[in-house]
Amino acid sequence: GGFEPLPVAPPASFKPLPDAFQPLLQPQQAPPPSTFQPPGAGFPYGGGALQPSPQQLYGGYQASQGSDDDWDDEWDDSSTVADEPGALGSGAYPDLDGSSSAGVGAAGRYRLSTRSDLSLGSRGGSVPPQHHPSGAKSSATVSRNLNRFSTFVKSGGEAFVLGEASGFVKDGDKLCVVLGPYGPEWQENPYPFQCTIDDPTKQTKFKGMKSYISYKLVPTHTQVPVHRRYKHFDWLYARLAEKFPVISVPHLPEKQATGRFEEDFISKRRKGLIWWMNHMASHPVLAQCDVFQHFLTCPSSTDEKAWKQGKRKAEKDEMVGANFFLTLSTPPAAALDLQEVESKIDGFKCFTKKMDDSALQLNHTANEFARKQVTGFKKEYQKVGQSFRGLSQAFELDQQAFSVGLNQAIAFTGDAYDAIGELFAEQPRQDLDPVMDLLALYQGHLANFPDIIHVQKGALTKVKESRRHVEEGKMEVQKADGIQDRCNTISFATLAEIHHFHQIRVRDFKSQMQHFLQQQIIFFQKVTQKLEEALHKYDSV
Amino acid sequence: GGFEPLPVAPPASFKPLPDAFQPLLQPQQAPPPSTFQPPGAGFPYGGGALQPSPQQLYGGYQASQGSDDDWDDEWDDSSTVADEPGALGSGAYPDLDGSSSAGVGAAGRYRLSTRSDLSLGSRGGSVPPQHHPSGAKSSATVSRNLNRFSTFVKSGGEAFVLGEASGFVKDGDKLCVVLGPYGPEWQENPYPFQCTIDDPTKQTKFKGMKSYISYKLVPTHTQVPVHRRYKHFDWLYARLAEKFPVISVPHLPEKQATGRFEEDFISKRRKGLIWWMNHMASHPVLAQCDVFQHFLTCPSSTDEKAWKQGKRKAEKDEMVGANFFLTLSTPPAAALDLQEVESKIDGFKCFTKKMDDSALQLNHTANEFARKQVTGFKKEYQKVGQSFRGLSQAFELDQQAFSVGLNQAIAFTGDAYDAIGELFAEQPRQDLDPVMDLLALYQGHLANFPDIIHVQKGALTKVKESRRHVEEGKMEVQKADGIQDRCNTISFATLAEIHHFHQIRVRDFKSQMQHFLQQQIIFFQKVTQKLEEALHKYDSV
Repeated sequence: GGFEPLPVAPPASFKPLPDAFQPLLQPQQAPPPSTFQPPGAGFPYGGGALQPSPQQLYGGYQASQGSDDDWDDEWDDSSTVADEPGALGSGAYPDLDGSSSAGVGAAGRYRLSTRSDLSLGSRGGSVPPQHHPSGAKSSATVSRNLNRFSTFVKSGGEAFVLGEASGFVKDGDKLCVVLGPYGPEWQENPYPFQCTIDDPTKQTKFKGMKSYISYKLVPTHTQVPVHRRYKHFDWLYARLAEKFPVISVPHLPEKQATGRFEEDFISKRRKGLIWWMNHMASHPVLAQCDVFQHFLTCPSSTDEKAWKQGKRKAEKDEMVGANFFLTLSTPPAAALDLQEVESKIDGFKCFTKKMDDSALQLNHTANEFARKQVTGFKKEYQKVGQSFRGLSQAFELDQQAFSVGLNQAIAFTGDAYDAIGELFAEQPRQDLDPVMDLLALYQGHLANFPDIIHVQKGALTKVKESRRHVEEGKMEVQKADGIQDRCNTISFATLAEIHHFHQIRVRDFKSQMQHFLQQQIIFFQKVTQKLEEALHKYDSV
Repeated sequence: GGFEPLPVAPPASFKPLPDAFQPLLQPQQAPPPSTFQPPGAGFPYGGGALQPSPQQLYGGYQASQGSDDDWDDEWDDSSTVADEPGALGSGAYPDLDGSSSAGVGAAGRYRLSTRSDLSLGSRGGSVPPQHHPSGAKSSATVSRNLNRFSTFVKSGGEAFVLGEASGFVKDGDKLCVVLGPYGPEWQENPYPFQCTIDDPTKQTKFKGMKSYISYKLVPTHTQVPVHRRYKHFDWLYARLAEKFPVISVPHLPEKQATGRFEEDFISKRRKGLIWWMNHMASHPVLAQCDVFQHFLTCPSSTDEKAWKQGKRKAEKDEMVGANFFLTLSTPPAAALDLQEVESKIDGFKCFTKKMDDSALQLNHTANEFARKQVTGFKKEYQKVGQSFRGLSQAFELDQQAFSVGLNQAIAFTGDAYDAIGELFAEQPRQDLDPVMDLLALYQGHLANFPDIIHVQKGALTKVKESRRHVEEGKMEVQKADGIQDRCNTISFATLAEIHHFHQIRVRDFKSQMQHFLQQQIIFFQKVTQKLEEALHKYDSV
């Protein structure tokens, strides 16, 4: 196998990871934690120690070795994840009422931030040894947040703005930004599609030595099912994140240290992948790009050769990073006002900060609320049920024929309160879990935007610099105009991406709030029904 | 004023109070607690230290000075109640989650057993200096539970069974026990009535130096309103408890150390008095007795003289205690099987023990459940509301016209969850409080029955003794037959009282459970409605 372990020590140019990025679970090949913990360094989004960054909550992305050789074997889901169950125990928030054992689900939801601990452990811990600004020939993907200062450089934004990118853009590769009623937008996908993800199936190979879960994908535009593993999604994610510097590629659902084959986890991951797929298919640029289409349509299980060919092609794609910007096509003769763009971007930055804070807050509240329902609420209602049953049992000692009906009605009432307790405990799966899934996905997007904004800001700075240089006679006007044109292209793309974000945000939060409220209504109606059944038992007493 | 302080030291024959009976707040004139605490002595009902006796929960009854002189002045509601607010703080159960400040209501409900502490402090602390078995000339009422062993003697049961009671029973005083389908019953009241209690009004006298609350009573059989103070109820209670040894006189709602004029307390007391009046009017014997009718009909405020006359007459009633038994009339030629009676009484004793335990348990659960709704549940729903509003506020920064509707809908949802939190906090008043009121009343009844059973047991023992005496030639058959006849009378009355208890129990618990469930249904419907309103806000988004 061609698996190359990552170097134990970072290269000289390596900048320390911010604190919040530090994995709790270290993959074997990563450096020890102590060398990576500068005090006080925080994730630029979010802030305090009690607020895990969005990437911690949902996971950053995963360095991977892109060679074919290790495709099926070493490069497994579990290869970068420590298998120590003890690491699950420590939550960021102390469990004040001692009911930590009552959480539900394999992923430790409702357990006070075990979720984020897991993300910390499973993602963001792998450090690529080198940066390849253009990305075209890199065999390792880039962790975007590694060095904020160089994002503009890394992304290829700088090279593009300075006119250093060159590549042949086929007509089919053109990505159009158009002017919509609210400003720049991505041109709509003329062939919109969706994709279902079903039948997670446990597969084994090497005579049962290796096991994995395979998901059945059926895109609506082909109707032909393909089967993919989580690591295929992960590979796809890495390609897209590398290719599109100003597009927020949705983060994959987090990895997990233990219980990969547990039903709860599989069901949760499937839901996460459906959300992910929904966001992928909704994005005009991502939905149409070759590597995604290859992923969706190539029958890997039957045509191994075609699959590997497409895979190799994607990994050798020249139109990534700086060259990606060449594929952008903006409305003809439309120049954006720089100050207006700057103000819009700054406004969006404020917005993402606020949304990130409130999403974190809501996520925490939802998790706590779910935990309370699973533990405290359930317990309270069941204690009431038990007390009613106790009264009924006492009444059964009364030897009075005329009170038999009452005794039975009270016992029934006790059972109804027991059932209501169960309803409370089961409810979070129906309403709060989907809210938290949505928040996690959006926290992933929010974590992407600082880099996207950074690229745009970098381009803007270059324009200002070039103007100064022209004033100082150090640069030709023509060159400065070129810089401004290319910055204009980046601004168009950035604003289009921001617009797309708002569009899907409004769509998703509307439908999720509706779903949440509908489920809550159904829940309270079920409770009411239980009580009405109990009440009717007294009619004949 | 003729107020005579109770003696500081108990008489020589005084038996120490059981532990559970020890007041937390000592009235000034009572002996210090240390002389009254034999270790391990428990209240015969209930048991452990964590289970306050029914009398503690609802209050025993109050020693009082029956002379006219102190009727209006010293003999005030607050005269036996210590006014130290600090005594309110110590609950029997530790407040584990530290939210003790969040209780509601003047009486400290939902505060973890403050309710029972209060009862401990306000009632049961006064010790009568002497016992007057016949009670006729006593100016102090008797604490029934003071000495279990002598209850049979105190009640006059012994004197009656031995044929030592004598008095002239007028036809109108006859109390009939009849044979119903389930055994002995009190003859129904041919003139059933009910009584409303309204308009609690603060009155002052002595130029505002004394204040009290006056309640308006309107009995349905006269339709003439009378006005009574709590101390009038208290006086009435003392008369009845003294007069009827085998009848469970409902306990009055507890006294209160502080806040006598607070709205919450007045409202609560009025409800308690309504319950009390309901039970009084339901009882065939109590409802018809002279002193109660005097209380219900004499216009004290306009005819002071008639009131005092009736009051004095009641206090000089000869037909109390032993003589009361003379007024009992049993079905002619009906003799109960002694063994059957014994088995029935034993069964009822088991029943009361079990019902007492389960009532305590339910009371504790209801109090805790109420407290959780007022504190935790409210907090959780309002935190959700706050988080939704936070999200909405973040979304308002988005500068996108197309998301205004969504932002408003989410804000509305936040407000709906706030309102639901409020609904949770307000709900216990509607449903759990009445349940606890009912339980308190029944805990009072359950606390009465040991003495009632004791009288019957004492009579039964006398029958067995007399039979042995006859066998041994120490007693004439005729005398033994007389004892058995009179024991038969007591058994009839006891079984009639037990039957009455079961009848009102089934009636009250049926209606209270129905009320509770109806209120719960209304509550959950209100919650559902709030959520539906919120859901509809998304229709136009």
